[in-house]
Amino acid sequence: MAALRIALDVMGGDHAPDATLKGALLSVSAEAKHRIEPSRLLLVGDKAAIEQGLAALGGNPGFEIVHASQVIAMAESPASALRSKPDSSIAVSIALVKKGLAGAAVSMGNTGAMVGAATLMLGTLEGVKRPGIAVAVNLTGKPVTLLDMGANTAPKAQHLVQYGLMGSVYARACLGLAEPRVGLLNIGEEEGKGTELHKEAYPLFKASGLNFVGNIEGHDIFRQSADVVVTDGFTGNVVLKLLEGFSQFMLQLVLGELKAHGASWAGEALAHVKKRVDYAEYGGALLLGVQGTVVIGHGRSDATAVSNAIGQGARAMDAQVNEHIVTGLSRAGAQA
Amino acid sequence: MAALRIALDVMGGDHAPDATLKGALLSVSAEAKHRIEPSRLLLVGDKAAIEQGLAALGGNPGFEIVHASQVIAMAESPASALRSKPDSSIAVSIALVKKGLAGAAVSMGNTGAMVGAATLMLGTLEGVKRPGIAVAVNLTGKPVTLLDMGANTAPKAQHLVQYGLMGSVYARACLGLAEPRVGLLNIGEEEGKGTELHKEAYPLFKASGLNFVGNIEGHDIFRQSADVVVTDGFTGNVVLKLLEGFSQFMLQLVLGELKAHGASWAGEALAHVKKRVDYAEYGGALLLGVQGTVVIGHGRSDATAVSNAIGQGARAMDAQVNEHIVTGLSRAGAQA
Repeated sequence: MAALRIALDVMGGDHAPDATLKGALLSVSAEAKHRIEPSRLLLVGDKAAIEQGLAALGGNPGFEIVHASQVIAMAESPASALRSKPDSSIAVSIALVKKGLAGAAVSMGNTGAMVGAATLMLGTLEGVKRPGIAVAVNLTGKPVTLLDMGANTAPKAQHLVQYGLMGSVYARACLGLAEPRVGLLNIGEEEGKGTELHKEAYPLFKASGLNFVGNIEGHDIFRQSADVVVTDGFTGNVVLKLLEGFSQFMLQLVLGELKAHGASWAGEALAHVKKRVDYAEYGGALLLGVQGTVVIGHGRSDATAVSNAIGQGARAMDAQVNEHIVTGLSRAGAQA
Repeated sequence: MAALRIALDVMGGDHAPDATLKGALLSVSAEAKHRIEPSRLLLVGDKAAIEQGLAALGGNPGFEIVHASQVIAMAESPASALRSKPDSSIAVSIALVKKGLAGAAVSMGNTGAMVGAATLMLGTLEGVKRPGIAVAVNLTGKPVTLLDMGANTAPKAQHLVQYGLMGSVYARACLGLAEPRVGLLNIGEEEGKGTELHKEAYPLFKASGLNFVGNIEGHDIFRQSADVVVTDGFTGNVVLKLLEGFSQFMLQLVLGELKAHGASWAGEALAHVKKRVDYAEYGGALLLGVQGTVVIGHGRSDATAVSNAIGQGARAMDAQVNEHIVTGLSRAGAQA
């Protein structure tokens, strides 16, 4: 079962190692959304700091610790950091997957470094041209899987179609959607809208065998118009950060207004809304298309978010997302 | 003063001609945010319908009516509609500007048709390579001018720099910002982030003489990090529709939650928030860079939004936005 272990980069994220260690402990506790056995977790980072941290939190329930002597900071340039820090907790976590000692790597750290390390060290799954970052957001009560959120800022039309397939596999295997509807994020509903990329991609989607529902506009994300929304990594990254910033901003605006009206209880009343729009609740993003399961959590993650990211990695592995992607691509290739 | 008149496309928008006529009447009433003289408005559309509509609303206060026998529907393909309907209210409105009988054209109708008619019939201002759609949103209490929102989905780097200049001119002349800070919408703060377009545009912005503050990420739009945010028309259009959809969605989510907590007064308490995030409140978008002032209001516009769009056109003309754009570009060209 070595392949099903999960390497957690303890040093990554704004609140590391405190939040990551607490998240690891939460994942093996009865309160976990998706409970896993302690022996499944490999904690990667400064060994002394991890041992000390766990001792302060009540002891090590059975995690294996893998030492990594270096840390890539959140703001470091990914390419140069990966070169200058070969023993970083990110590189060591990915190396554990590469060596088959873990099936998944989970980090709240530098996204670019994680994507870079995973892409370079693990390589792509058979048939995959370019990996993509998928994020499942559940604003409306039904999850929408958005991809690519920034791995590939200048995709080709075929990459977009592969994102549609990978997103569909994920939505089916991990989110329980039977026939995920795939939409192409665009600036109008009709075929022929958008840039040359979109004009080229549209007929490819139609011929792909995916449950393609056509173009999706910005506002459609909130209307359950599609279960998988495909976009280039540039637009996707802008959209993701906009969603995050806007939800925070709107909540503050609303709370301020309500409190000005004397509703001091408003914060509590809106905790549910906050939870629904809070990125941290979703766990993390999945880098789909690489040989291994790679979860990139939000830098701001608290223990709950870390635990959700670990659970997401476990679910993706257990549901054999990667195997389904390879099968799906091979089937699509045979049809083409 | 013929050049300072405003042609209003009475037939454009989801609630036309009722909302447009009421908006025109509001604009000349004491309640107008930006009051204008009735003689300044040219109402363009079906003459009989306009006369009948005005009669039902208490009479014509002094508007001139210009007959247009055709209407381009919201969902029509812009290019073919412009070809097949030469006497559409949109084409006639733009033609009034072309002939110098009006300085501005305002429509809540088909955006693509309005942009197409304006670009083809009016031509660009001296020095302008490509027109861009600017929208000023005021979510945080300080307006942010976003452009391009969809006129130019595949811009070159020089187009983006011109958008920065045009947005700055608008923010200075119409929004009263002394030294508008210009940001480039991107997926990271550092120079070198983003697509080839962004990598090429960054140094051009630095050398432009604009008050360039660097790259701006999605969440920065809510942090007053820049006064003018420049992007390609594809990303801009996605962002605009996302903002609109998300604000509506969030308000519904919050209101539902508060009402479930028994706060039946919440709708009233949040009217102020609704107003702040409601696109209709901003009036409309300005097509900057064409020879004339062109305002494209939201299709859903009610009378208030129509009146705001008319006011926006009047302000842009009175503040000589186009003259400042030409001067600014000529100065930038002399420096280069």
